[in-house]
Order: sequence, then C-alpha cells, then structure tokens
Amino acid sequence: MLLLTTITGVRARRRDLRLQGRTVALVPTMGAIHEGHLCLVDRARELADEVWATVFVNPTQFGPGEDFAHYPRDLEHDRALLAGRGVALLFAPSDKEIYPRPSATVVDLPELTAGLCGTFRPGHFRGVALVVTKLLSIAQPEWAVFGAKDWQQAAVIRRLVEDLNLPVRIEVAPTVREADGLAMSSRNAYLDPDERRAATVLIRALRAAETAITSGERDGEAIRRVLTEVVASEPRAQLQYAAVVDPDTLQELARIGRLALLALAAHVGATRLIDNLLVEVP
Amino acid sequence: MLLLTTITGVRARRRDLRLQGRTVALVPTMGAIHEGHLCLVDRARELADEVWATVFVNPTQFGPGEDFAHYPRDLEHDRALLAGRGVALLFAPSDKEIYPRPSATVVDLPELTAGLCGTFRPGHFRGVALVVTKLLSIAQPEWAVFGAKDWQQAAVIRRLVEDLNLPVRIEVAPTVREADGLAMSSRNAYLDPDERRAATVLIRALRAAETAITSGERDGEAIRRVLTEVVASEPRAQLQYAAVVDPDTLQELARIGRLALLALAAHVGATRLIDNLLVEVP
Repeated sequence: MLLLTTITGVRARRRDLRLQGRTVALVPTMGAIHEGHLCLVDRARELADEVWATVFVNPTQFGPGEDFAHYPRDLEHDRALLAGRGVALLFAPSDKEIYPRPSATVVDLPELTAGLCGTFRPGHFRGVALVVTKLLSIAQPEWAVFGAKDWQQAAVIRRLVEDLNLPVRIEVAPTVREADGLAMSSRNAYLDPDERRAATVLIRALRAAETAITSGERDGEAIRRVLTEVVASEPRAQLQYAAVVDPDTLQELARIGRLALLALAAHVGATRLIDNLLVEVP
Repeated sequence: MLLLTTITGVRARRRDLRLQGRTVALVPTMGAIHEGHLCLVDRARELADEVWATVFVNPTQFGPGEDFAHYPRDLEHDRALLAGRGVALLFAPSDKEIYPRPSATVVDLPELTAGLCGTFRPGHFRGVALVVTKLLSIAQPEWAVFGAKDWQQAAVIRRLVEDLNLPVRIEVAPTVREADGLAMSSRNAYLDPDERRAATVLIRALRAAETAITSGERDGEAIRRVLTEVVASEPRAQLQYAAVVDPDTLQELARIGRLALLALAAHVGATRLIDNLLVEVP
C-alpha cells in the first residue's frame, strides 16, 4: 500500500491510473479504523479497480468544546488495517496540506443541516461539506463510499455531489454493528465498561420504534415517543434528539409513508453517540 | 464546432479527449459574445489543445429586478462567432439541465463578496460560485479563462478553486476596450447613442485616478475622490461605488502600496456598468 501525504502525489498517481484506464473508489475516514470502515473498503473493492482511503481528522468539522484534540489518532494501526484489507493508496495529509490558509469558501446545505445533528453541532456539516469536496477534488475517484451510520452526512454529501455536478458516484454502505447491536464508531473507544453496556440503549430504542411501526403505528410523534422512552429507561444515557424523518430530505414526518428514518443522538457518560434505522413500511 | 446541450454529452467527449491525452481550456460565458469574449478564446487556445466555451445565462446570479429576463440571447450569433474563432465545443445547456431542481448547496465566499459589486448585488456571487463550480465539474478542463473586467468575479473564482482544490488552473485575461476606452460588455448593447458617449466616464475616471497615483498620491480616500469627482462630472452617469482595494483580498486600502485595484460601478441611464484598473506603483 502506498502512503501519500501530499496533494501533488495523489494527483500524479491519479493521472497514471487514468492513463491505464483504471478506476478508483475512495473511502474517506478520520482514522481510528474499525470493522465499520473496513466493510466500506470491502464495498469499495466491488465498485472500482483500486480502493483508496484517506485518514484526516478534519479540524473544520469540530466545534469548540468538541473532541478534536483528543480524537483517537494512530496512523500506524490504521495503515496496517487498511493495507490488510487491500487498500492500494492511503492519503494521510497534514492539516497544513489541506488548509494552507483558512478557507474563504463556505459550502453549506442549510435545509439538510438545520435538523438532527446539525442543530447540536452548528458548523459541523459545513466542515464536512468543505473537506469532502476538497478530498473528492484531490483524489478524483469514480466512486466514494460512506457509512449509513452517519446518515445525515451521507445525505448531505449525496446532495452536494448532485448540486455541484461533482464527477463521482456516492455509495452508502450499511451500518456495521457489534454482536449486541451497538453501531461501530471510533468514539465507542471512549466508553468505560458500564457505559459500553448502557450504549446498546440506542439500538434497543430504534428496534422498539421499528416494532411499533411493524405493529401498525404511523404517527410520527407516537414513534418518537417510543424512542424517547426507551432511552429514558437507561440512567447512563442522556437523549439529545430522537427524530422520525424522510430519509432524503431529513424533514420531520407527522405521519410515515413507505419509508422512514429513525434517528437518535444521546450522550452515554461524556460520549456522544448517534445511530439510525431505515424502516420500510410493509 | 460541436454544439452540446447535455451534461452527459460533454462528459463523454471529455472522456474521449482524456484517452487521447488532449487538454481543454474552458471559456464560460453568458453569451451575447463580443470581442472581449473572443480574446478570452484566443488566450485559451494558447493554454490547451482544445478550447471549449459555454453559453448559459445563469438565473441564480441575477437578483430580483435585474435584467435576467431581457439579457441578450442569440445562440446562432454566438455560435458563429465562437466557431469562427476556433472553439471546438460549445456547451449551451437549458436551465433545467443545469438546475433540474433548486440547489440545496450554497457556495459562498463572504469575505470576498461583502464589498464592491457584492454590496449592491446580494446573492450574485453565490450564483456565480455555484454555476462556475458546476461548469468546471461538468467540463473538467485543465484551464478556465475569465476576463479581468469582472475582477471581483475572477478573484472569487480563483479563491474558490484554491479552497476547494478544484483540479483546474484559472487564467485571467486583460479587459478588452473599444477605441474610446469603454470596456467591452454585453450590457453596452443597452446604451443609446448619448449614453454610449457618456459611458466613457468610467475609464476616464479610472485613468484620472491612475494619473493621480503616478503623480505621487498614495492616500486611498484622495484617490477615491478623484474617481467620484470625474463620474459626477457626467450628468448621465450615477455612481454606485468607487473603490481602491487590494487586488487579491479586495479589502479597501487606506494607503496604497505596490499594487492597487481601482474599481467603479455606475448607472448610465438605466444600464449598470462596471470597470476597473490595476495600478502598479512605480
């Protein structure tokens, strides 16, 4: 696996591959690689001739008081895992390489980012939209693969690519879960054993709401109440939001139709976790 | 010359050229082609194997009450002129092709667009930034060429390309002028003969200010006063702004150093005209 740290290096490699007619699928990450990321790599391998990954803890998507400073960083570990799964090129740039000076350009999707995580992380999705646009422009992949766990992020990126006509196709791969259902996340590493057990409350709440829908419930507020009550039953968890939304527009649903996205954010101890479930009404 | 109206068509052609190792320089226009545009084509021809042009009157860069509805449109005329100057491909899409639905994505450069034309055309540069990003992503040229007459636009695009790492180089070509100094502009067609004569007041004001600088004036306010007074001497002209700014940051200069951009906007009759002059201090 090739490890590159400069934009020039990535572009030169991309030019070579293009002349060979070889395609690239990109998996952008913030490192702290876990099985969830590696399943994105597996999916990417099905889409293109080469899988490229990026490891970049993007400062512009962290708010003041968030965990930018102590976000887990271990490039050697990430590198071994990604190489082991067949990644051909890893781009791991410095902050200075990506932001030689602060960006004067703002990329914003106000309608898609007003709700859900956007409400509680102002500026977060502007940072995501900016860095993803940059990484896509640098690597120029045919495909880019993101995880469904960050559903709002995926929706933002899909729309951004459509609106800006970026020459890339976006694939969203299913959330990978631990045996007990907890969605894999780099931030799970922050949990102590008690919190780790309590953290399953997110998927338990989502499944209870799904069961309510399967049993015939169609009222958005009633489904939201199921989510809220299950999370409230876990003393270590503090709900930030519970939402029942349209999976594309992310707008709240008063009544659900054929498809609904159930989405949650909660603090477990000091750790903020998110999860979601796409429910198809039979 | 190939005339294309679909994104798919442009992308297919781009793919073919890339396999042949041929490069493209793009000249984006809103049509109403004049010698100013054709000089951009000439410059583009020096930069790449093929020159491509776009003709698209971009609705999102016009404000309410601006001249979107009656902006001059004559594709046959534009086509003949561009073909005559050696353009290989003309992309002239419909509004629906570029905006199949309203963009949820906003591309904004607030610091570069607060002043000058941005003050008087709120949202204009967001429309420009959006459509240029789209056109560059669609055509994927190695170069794109813009005119210095729209200096603020060129500064915005240069910064946008840098910030988003768009894989294109931006060339800014000098303003082309009529024999009496009036900067060429599609909007000059709106002027009646008296207004046409009066319109030279913009370049006369700019040259008077340049002379003041050559004679030793370094105070921004004093230079601005020269601009204002010359424009005021023309009864058919109504000044909108006169500015002395840094050519890159577009920030007002209290005192000028090595380089200053003198910039003007004025209504002559009902027609809004802009012009500027880059002055290098000896």
